[in-house]
Amino acid sequence: MQKGMIKVSVLYPNGDGKKFDMDYYSIKHVALLGGLLGDAIKGATIESGLGGAAPGSPAPFAAVGNLYFENLEAFQNSFGPNAEKIMGDLPNFTNIEPVIQIAEVVV
Amino acid sequence: MQKGMIKVSVLYPNGDGKKFDMDYYSIKHVALLGGLLGDAIKGATIESGLGGAAPGSPAPFAAVGNLYFENLEAFQNSFGPNAEKIMGDLPNFTNIEPVIQIAEVVV
Repeated sequence: MQKGMIKVSVLYPNGDGKKFDMDYYSIKHVALLGGLLGDAIKGATIESGLGGAAPGSPAPFAAVGNLYFENLEAFQNSFGPNAEKIMGDLPNFTNIEPVIQIAEVVV
Repeated sequence: MQKGMIKVSVLYPNGDGKKFDMDYYSIKHVALLGGLLGDAIKGATIESGLGGAAPGSPAPFAAVGNLYFENLEAFQNSFGPNAEKIMGDLPNFTNIEPVIQIAEVVV
């Protein structure tokens, strides 16, 4: 993605008793986002946590999803009105409360 | 990046008194990584934290750097022998102890 674009990361912290359904997330949740946010999304990536720094340690995050927007306004104007519907889908694939990071692409 | 590749994210948590020199990081630290890991790196991205979920809230992470590798072995074989040199550069741009996430690219 290009320098200056907005990257919104949704990070799902790992922990005892935490569940995350990657199949639902990568197919149905992504389809929901695509339908609601449409062209405002300039790119999307998903990764599944494997481990941490120490050998054999658990990944800090079970999963991370990233969405790219042209600028902050494009994110706010598309996500804001749909936030309730998007967040309402979370219980369908996880019991984790995600951490949201809004960032600017540097490289 | 392609499905199945390894994404190593280095996340720098924000907090009181935390400092992060993005200029040094995005130029000198990246050059150090390139010199040490070379062709093992299939891609690299950096983002600078702007905010969190609540309006006006600070970004959970001051910065995040991501490196992509073909597979876990490529990461371990290139990073392992150079870990000390790479981690030794951190005090030159930050006083934050980073969180390391090793993940698999899903989408």
